[in-house]
Amino acid sequence: MQGQQQQAYDRGITIFSPDGRLYQVEYAREAVKRGSPSVGVRTPEGVVLAADKRRRSEMIEPDSVEKLHKADGHIGIASAGHVADARKLIDVARREAQTNRLRYGEPITVETLAKTVTDFVQQYTQYGGARPFGVSLIVGGVTNGRPRLFECDPSGTPYEWQALSVGANRSEIRDHLEAEYEEEMTLEDGVDLALSALTVVDDEEMTPEGVDLATIDVETEEYVQLPDEEIEAHLAERDLLAEDEPEDDEDAEEGSEE
Amino acid sequence: MQGQQQQAYDRGITIFSPDGRLYQVEYAREAVKRGSPSVGVRTPEGVVLAADKRRRSEMIEPDSVEKLHKADGHIGIASAGHVADARKLIDVARREAQTNRLRYGEPITVETLAKTVTDFVQQYTQYGGARPFGVSLIVGGVTNGRPRLFECDPSGTPYEWQALSVGANRSEIRDHLEAEYEEEMTLEDGVDLALSALTVVDDEEMTPEGVDLATIDVETEEYVQLPDEEIEAHLAERDLLAEDEPEDDEDAEEGSEE
Amino acid sequence: MQGQQQQAYDRGITIFSPDGRLYQVEYAREAVKRGSPSVGVRTPEGVVLAADKRRRSEMIEPDSVEKLHKADGHIGIASAGHVADARKLIDVARREAQTNRLRYGEPITVETLAKTVTDFVQQYTQYGGARPFGVSLIVGGVTNGRPRLFECDPSGTPYEWQALSVGANRSEIRDHLEAEYEEEMTLEDGVDLALSALTVVDDEEMTPEGVDLATIDVETEEYVQLPDEEIEAHLAERDLLAEDEPEDDEDAEEGSEE
Amino acid sequence: MQGQQQQAYDRGITIFSPDGRLYQVEYAREAVKRGSPSVGVRTPEGVVLAADKRRRSEMIEPDSVEKLHKADGHIGIASAGHVADARKLIDVARREAQTNRLRYGEPITVETLAKTVTDFVQQYTQYGGARPFGVSLIVGGVTNGRPRLFECDPSGTPYEWQALSVGANRSEIRDHLEAEYEEEMTLEDGVDLALSALTVVDDEEMTPEGVDLATIDVETEEYVQLPDEEIEAHLAERDLLAEDEPEDDEDAEEGSEE
Amino acid sequence: MQGQQQQAYDRGITIFSPDGRLYQVEYAREAVKRGSPSVGVRTPEGVVLAADKRRRSEMIEPDSVEKLHKADGHIGIASAGHVADARKLIDVARREAQTNRLRYGEPITVETLAKTVTDFVQQYTQYGGARPFGVSLIVGGVTNGRPRLFECDPSGTPYEWQALSVGANRSEIRDHLEAEYEEEMTLEDGVDLALSALTVVDDEEMTPEGVDLATIDVETEEYVQLPDEEIEAHLAERDLLAEDEPEDDEDAEEGSEE
Amino acid sequence: MQGQQQQAYDRGITIFSPDGRLYQVEYAREAVKRGSPSVGVRTPEGVVLAADKRRRSEMIEPDSVEKLHKADGHIGIASAGHVADARKLIDVARREAQTNRLRYGEPITVETLAKTVTDFVQQYTQYGGARPFGVSLIVGGVTNGRPRLFECDPSGTPYEWQALSVGANRSEIRDHLEAEYEEEMTLEDGVDLALSALTVVDDEEMTPEGVDLATIDVETEEYVQLPDEEIEAHLAERDLLAEDEPEDDEDAEEGSEE
Amino acid sequence: MQGQQQQAYDRGITIFSPDGRLYQVEYAREAVKRGSPSVGVRTPEGVVLAADKRRRSEMIEPDSVEKLHKADGHIGIASAGHVADARKLIDVARREAQTNRLRYGEPITVETLAKTVTDFVQQYTQYGGARPFGVSLIVGGVTNGRPRLFECDPSGTPYEWQALSVGANRSEIRDHLEAEYEEEMTLEDGVDLALSALTVVDDEEMTPEGVDLATIDVETEEYVQLPDEEIEAHLAERDLLAEDEPEDDEDAEEGSEE
Repeated sequence: MQGQQQQAYDRGITIFSPDGRLYQVEYAREAVKRGSPSVGVRTPEGVVLAADKRRRSEMIEPDSVEKLHKADGHIGIASAGHVADARKLIDVARREAQTNRLRYGEPITVETLAKTVTDFVQQYTQYGGARPFGVSLIVGGVTNGRPRLFECDPSGTPYEWQALSVGANRSEIRDHLEAEYEEEMTLEDGVDLALSALTVVDDEEMTPEGVDLATIDVETEEYVQLPDEEIEAHLAERDLLAEDEPEDDEDAEEGSEE
Repeated sequence: MQGQQQQAYDRGITIFSPDGRLYQVEYAREAVKRGSPSVGVRTPEGVVLAADKRRRSEMIEPDSVEKLHKADGHIGIASAGHVADARKLIDVARREAQTNRLRYGEPITVETLAKTVTDFVQQYTQYGGARPFGVSLIVGGVTNGRPRLFECDPSGTPYEWQALSVGANRSEIRDHLEAEYEEEMTLEDGVDLALSALTVVDDEEMTPEGVDLATIDVETEEYVQLPDEEIEAHLAERDLLAEDEPEDDEDAEEGSEE
Repeated sequence: MQGQQQQAYDRGITIFSPDGRLYQVEYAREAVKRGSPSVGVRTPEGVVLAADKRRRSEMIEPDSVEKLHKADGHIGIASAGHVADARKLIDVARREAQTNRLRYGEPITVETLAKTVTDFVQQYTQYGGARPFGVSLIVGGVTNGRPRLFECDPSGTPYEWQALSVGANRSEIRDHLEAEYEEEMTLEDGVDLALSALTVVDDEEMTPEGVDLATIDVETEEYVQLPDEEIEAHLAERDLLAEDEPEDDEDAEEGSEE
Repeated sequence: MQGQQQQAYDRGITIFSPDGRLYQVEYAREAVKRGSPSVGVRTPEGVVLAADKRRRSEMIEPDSVEKLHKADGHIGIASAGHVADARKLIDVARREAQTNRLRYGEPITVETLAKTVTDFVQQYTQYGGARPFGVSLIVGGVTNGRPRLFECDPSGTPYEWQALSVGANRSEIRDHLEAEYEEEMTLEDGVDLALSALTVVDDEEMTPEGVDLATIDVETEEYVQLPDEEIEAHLAERDLLAEDEPEDDEDAEEGSEE
Repeated sequence: MQGQQQQAYDRGITIFSPDGRLYQVEYAREAVKRGSPSVGVRTPEGVVLAADKRRRSEMIEPDSVEKLHKADGHIGIASAGHVADARKLIDVARREAQTNRLRYGEPITVETLAKTVTDFVQQYTQYGGARPFGVSLIVGGVTNGRPRLFECDPSGTPYEWQALSVGANRSEIRDHLEAEYEEEMTLEDGVDLALSALTVVDDEEMTPEGVDLATIDVETEEYVQLPDEEIEAHLAERDLLAEDEPEDDEDAEEGSEE
Repeated sequence: MQGQQQQAYDRGITIFSPDGRLYQVEYAREAVKRGSPSVGVRTPEGVVLAADKRRRSEMIEPDSVEKLHKADGHIGIASAGHVADARKLIDVARREAQTNRLRYGEPITVETLAKTVTDFVQQYTQYGGARPFGVSLIVGGVTNGRPRLFECDPSGTPYEWQALSVGANRSEIRDHLEAEYEEEMTLEDGVDLALSALTVVDDEEMTPEGVDLATIDVETEEYVQLPDEEIEAHLAERDLLAEDEPEDDEDAEEGSEE
Repeated sequence: MQGQQQQAYDRGITIFSPDGRLYQVEYAREAVKRGSPSVGVRTPEGVVLAADKRRRSEMIEPDSVEKLHKADGHIGIASAGHVADARKLIDVARREAQTNRLRYGEPITVETLAKTVTDFVQQYTQYGGARPFGVSLIVGGVTNGRPRLFECDPSGTPYEWQALSVGANRSEIRDHLEAEYEEEMTLEDGVDLALSALTVVDDEEMTPEGVDLATIDVETEEYVQLPDEEIEAHLAERDLLAEDEPEDDEDAEEGSEE
C-alpha cells in the first residue's frame, strides 16, 4: 500500500489496515529509530547494558540524559526513543518491582518484570484514547544466578536476546553484534562488545561522557554503573577513545532522545 | 466492492458494510496470516499442538518466541498472529481456568475454555473504543478422557476440528492435513503429521529449535512439551531435519510474530 | 438513493437517512443473508427447527457448527448470520430463561423470551458505541400446550410465524414453505417440510451431518434433537439423501456462518 | 436548501441547520411515513383506535403485528413507524402507568401519560449518542369520564386531536377525517369512521384480520379490543369487506412496520 | 463569511467561527423565527402575555397548543420556537419555582426565575454532547407589586423589556409595539396592544381560539388566563375579530410550533 | 497561514496550529471585540469601572443590560463579549468571594479573585468537550487600601493595568487612555477619563442611561454604582452629554452584548 | 513530509506521524518560541534565573507579567510560552513542593520537583481529550548546597543544564551562553551573563522594569528576587541600560506571553 491509500488506515489508533498491520505501532517504531542507540549483551558472567548519550549541547549535564535506569537492585533498563515515554515505563517497572518485594518478600524475576511492562504497552495498541509508547526498552538482570536480557518494543512483544540493540542504526549494530558475539565471553568482553557496538556506525570514537554503561554480575546480582574512568580505559584499550566529545547534529530534535 | 467504496466501510470498528461484512474483523484475519503457522492434530490417543517458531535473528532465545502456551494442566494453546494480542488472550484463558478450579474444584473443560475466549473476543468486534484481536488460537486438551481441539478466530467463532492450522500458508497446510489425516492414527503419528504440516511449504526442512511441540495424552491428561531431542528424532525419521537453522526473511516485520 | 448519496447516511450507527431508513440495520440483514439458512415450522403437534450446517471443511466437527440451540427445556433457537453474534444472543436468552425460573418458579413463555431478545437487540440500533447484531433468530417452543414460533431480526422486531426461514435464499425457501405448509399437518410432516425447505435451492441433496433438526412436542414440551439416523430416514424417504456430503464453496468466508 | 448543502447538516443528531431545522427529527418522521397507518377518533361516548396491520406474508400471525397496545386499563396506544422503537415507547408508557398507580393509588390521566412519553422522546432529539425515535403514537383513553386523544411525534411534541392519523397516506386520511368527522357522533359511528379512514386510499377493502380496533368507552373506562366478528360486521355494513386478504407489496421492507 | 467557509464553522456545537460567532446558537434563533409569535407587554398595572396559537388543522384541540404556561402562581411564560424544547424549559422553571417556595417559604422573584432559566440555557451553548435550545421565552410576572418582563433567548442572555415579541415577524411586531407602547397605559390597554401586535402582520384578523392571553395584575399578583369571551370582546372592540378561524398554511411543519 | 490551511487547525478546541497558536482562543477574542466596550481606570484614590450599555431597542430596560457587576463588597467586574458567558464567570467569581469570607473570615483580595477566574478560564482552552469563554473581564477593587485593576481574557491570562479597555474599538480607546492617563489623578478625574474613553470613537455623545459606572474608593473600600444624575453631571461637564440616546445599529446581533 | 501530507498527522493529539513524530508536541514548542525568552545560569555559588518581561503596553503593571515564580523557598521557575499554561504548571509545582514538606518534613529536591512536572506534562502528549502544554520551564534551585538547573519542555523531557534559555531567539542566546559561560564563575558573573544573554538579540538595551531576575544562593538556599536598583546597576555596568523602556511590537499577540 502506498500514499493516499496508506493514509486511510494509519491515523486511527486502534484499527487494522487491509493487510493486517497496525500503522500507529509501526510509526511508534520509527520514533524509536529516531533515538540514539542502546545495547544489551548477555554473557555467562552477567549482563551488560550500554547507551549512547551524546548530547545536543555541551551545556547539558551528561547525567541528566537518562538512557540507563536501575529498575531494581538486580535489574537495569536501557531505552531508546521518546524520552518522556521511557520515563513513564521505567516508573511502571519500578513500581512493579517494589510491589513484588512487598507482596512476596523477594525480588521480581527479570522475565516477570519484562512481561509486565510489555503487557502494559500492549493495551496502548488496542484501546482508543491514547497513542502507543514511542520507546523500546532493553530489560536486563540476573535471576537466581541466571543472566537474562529482554526487549520490550512498542507493540508490547517480549523477546529474550543474547545481545541486541534498540534505536538508531539498529541493523548495522546488530550485524556487528552477531559477528562479534561469543556465547562464552567474559563480562569484560561483553563490556568491550557493547562499547564497540555503539561506535560501529561511521567508525566514530567516543568519550566516557558520551556513554552510560552498567553491569549486573551473576555473582553479586547487583546493578553497577561503570565509572567514567573504567569506561575510558575500555575505550582506550579498543582505540575507541575520542579526544573531544563529538557533538551531535545541531538539528537534532529536542524532546526526542539525544 | 472495491477501492474507494470499500474504504468507506473498513475503518470503523463497529459497522457493517453494505454487503454485511465487518472489514476490521477481516483485516484482523490478515494479521493472523502474517504470523508463522501453528498446527493442531487430534488423535484418539490425544492432542498434538505444534508451532513454527523460526526467529528473525539467531540471537533471539528460541524459548522466548511464545507460540505454544500451557493454559492449564490439561490444556494447551497454540497461536498465530499478533504476539502481544495472543499474550493477552492466553492470560484471559489462564485466569478462567484457575477460576474454574477455585470455584468448582475441578478442571475446566476444553470446550468451556475455548468458548469463554471466543465470547471475550466477540465483544471486540461489536463495541467501539478498541480494535479486534489480531490473533487466532488453537485450544487443545483432554476432558474426561476425550481429546478436543478448538479454533478461536478474530470474529470470536469457535469451531472444533480434527486437525487444523492457523497463520501463514493456511490453505496449503490444510490440504496437507486433509490428505494425511487418519481418524485412528496414534499420537506418535499425530506428532509426525503436525511436523510435516509445518514444513509442507516449499519443502523446507526444520531444526528442533525452530519448532515447539506439545501433546496432551488421553491417559495422563497432562500437557507435555516435547524435548528437542525427541523433536529431532521425529524430524530425522521423516527426513525433515535441517542441518542449519534456516533464517527467516530479514524483512520480517518486528512486533508481529516470528 | 444511490452511490455517493447513500454513503453519506450508512456509516453512522444511530442516524436516519433522509428517507427514514437505518442503513446499518439493513446491512446487518445482509450479514444474515450471508449465513446458511435455518427453518422453523409450527404444527398443531409441535414446533420444528432445522438448520443447514454444511461445513467449509470435512475436518470441522459437525457438532461444533452451532446453528441450533436449546434455550430452555421447552424452547429452541435456530440462527442464521454472524455466528459469534448469535452466541451472544443465545446467552442472553438462556440467562433470561433461567432468571424466570428462579424468580417466578415456572418456565418462561416462548413469547416473553422472544420479545426479551428483540428488545435487547433494538438498543443496538438506537444507541452509539456498538453495531447492530448481524444475526436473525427463530425462537420456537411450547407454552401451556400451545406451539409458538417467533422471528427476531436485526431491527429488534418480533413476529410470530406459521413457518419461516432466515438466512440465505430466504425468498425461495419462503415460497416453498407457503406452497407446502398446511395448518393441520403432523409434526412428522413438519419435519419433512423443514428438511425439504433446506434443500429447495438448486435441488441439492443433504447428508444427516449437514443438518441439525430439533422438535418441541406439545405433549412432552421437551426440546429434542433428532438423531442422525432419524434425519437420514426422513431424507431417504423424501429422496433428499446425498451419498457424499457436498462441500461448501472453498471461498466461503471464515468467521461467518458455514 | 438542497443536495450537498443539506447533507452538511442532516447527519448530526443534535445540531440545527442554518434555517433552524433538526434534520434527524424530520427523517425520523419519514420513517413514520413508511409505516402503515393508524387512526384515532374521539367521540363524546369514547375513543376509537384503529390500525392497519396487513402483513407482508400470510404466514405471519396477525396477532404478532403489534400496532395497537393496551397501556393501562383505560388507555390504549396505536403506533406507526419503526416497530422496535414503538415497543420501547410502549414499555416506557406502561411502566409510567404502573408507577402512577403504585405511587398515587389511582390511574394515570391520559394527558399525563402522553406528555411523559413526549418528554422522554424529546431527549433523543437534543442529546448526542442516540438517534430520535422513528415512530409516532396515538395515545387515547378516558380520564374522569372525559375522552382524550393525543399524538406523540418524533420531535416530542404532544397535541390533542378530535381525530387523527399517523403513518402512510397521512394527508389523504386526514382529509377524509376532516370531511366525515362530527363532534356529536356516537362511538359506533366513530368505529365506522376509523375503519373507512384506513381504507380511504385507493378504495381498498379490508379483511378483519388486516385491522386492529379498540375502544375506550366513557362509561366503562375500559380498553376493549373489538373481536373480528364485530369488525367484519362494521366492514360489511360499509361495503369495505374484502373477500380475500389483500397482500402487501412483496418488496415491503422487513423490520419496518407492515 | 459565506457558503463553504461558513459551513466549516457552523456544525460544531461548541466552537467559535473566526469572526467570533457561535453559529449553532444563531441557527437555534432561526428555529425560534419559524415559530408563531408570542408577545409580552408590561404596564404599571401588570403584565400581559399573549400568544398566537393558530393550528395547522381544525381538528387539533386549541388547548393543546401550548404557547402560554403558568410557571408559578404569579409568573407566566410565553414561548416561540421548538415546542418540545419549550416544554423542557418550562419544566425547569416550574421546578425552580417550587424549590424556592420549599426552601425559602416565599415565591421566587421573576428576575431570579428568568436568570435561572438563562443560565441553564447557556450551558447548552458551551458544552458538547447536546444542541442549544431552539426556543425563546417571555417570562412575565409580579414581584412585590412590581411588574417584570424578561426575555430568555437561545444564547442564554436575559434582558428585561417594556414590551417585546419573540418568534415569527419579530421586527414588524416590534415596530408596532414601539409605536403604540405608552409607559402609563392601563392593563386593559396592554391587552389591546398585545392582541393588535399579534395581528399586525398582513392585517390579519383573529378568532378567540387562535390566541392565548394571560395577565398578572400587580394587585392580585395572580396569573389569570383570559376566557375566550373576553378575548372576543377585546378583538371585536379593535375590529380584529375574524369570522372564521383562518387556517395556517397546510405546509406548516409538524413538530415545530403552530 | 491563510485560507484553507488555517481552517485545518482552527476548528478543534484543544490543538495547536503549526505556528503554535490556539485558534479557538483567538476567535473567542473576536467574540469579545463584537461586544460594546468596558473601561477600567486605577487612581491612587480608587478604581473606576465603566461600561457602554447602549441598547438595540429603547424598550429594553437599561438595568438589564449587565455589563457591570458587583463581585463582592469591595470588588467590581466589567465585561465585554458574550453576555451569557460573562454571567457564568461572574457567578464563579461571586462564589469564590463568598467562599473566601466563609473559610478565612476576611474578604478575598482582588488579585486572588482575578487569578481564580483566569485559572478557571484556562481549563476551557486545554480540555476538549467545551469551547473557550467568549468574554473578557476587568476585575477592579481595593485590597488593604491599595487599588488594583486586572484583566481576564479568553486565554486565561491575568494582567494588571493602570487603565485598560476591553471590547470593541479597543485600540482607539487604549490610545486615548495612554494619552490622558496620569498616575496621580483623582478619582473624579478617573471617572471623567473613563467616560471620555467610552465616547472616544466617532466623537459620540452619551446619555446617562447608555453607561454604567462604579467606583471603589480606597477609603471606604466599597463598590458604589454612580447614580444617573452624577453621570449626567460628569458628561455635561465634559460636553459629552447627548440630548437623545443614540440607538445602536439595528443590525446588532441579539444574544451578543449590546 | 510537507504540506498536505503533514496535515494528515498533525491535528490529532495522540498519534504518531509515519516518521515517528508527534506534531502537536512540536507545535507546542512553536508556542514556546512565540514567548519572550527566559534564561537560567548555574554557578558554583548558586543559580540565576532571569526573564524578559517587556510589556506590550506601558500601562500594564510590570509585576503582573509573570515570568519568574517562586516555587518553594529554595526553588524558582522561569517560563516562556503560553502564560496561562505556565500558571497551571507552576501551581502543580507549588502543590508538589508543599506536599513534600508536609509528608516528609523536608524541602523537595530540585530534581524531584522538575521531574514531577515533566511526568505531569508527558500525560498531555499521550492521552486524548486535551492538548499538550504550550510552555517550557526552567526549574532552578539548591539542594543540600548543590545548585541545580533543569529544563521542562512540552514533551515532558527533563534535562539538566549549566546554562540555558527557553523562548524566542533560543539559538542566538544559547550561542552567547556557550561562548561566555565559565564553570567557575561567581554568582555575580552569572547575573551579568543572564542579563547580557537576554539582550543579545539585536544588541538591544534594557530597563530594569523589562526584566525579572532571581538568585538562589548555595549559602542561604533562599530564592531572592533582585530589586530594580541592583538590576539597574548590573545593566549599567555592562552598558546594557536603556534610557527608555523599549516597547514591544504593537502587533504582539495578546494572551501569549509578552
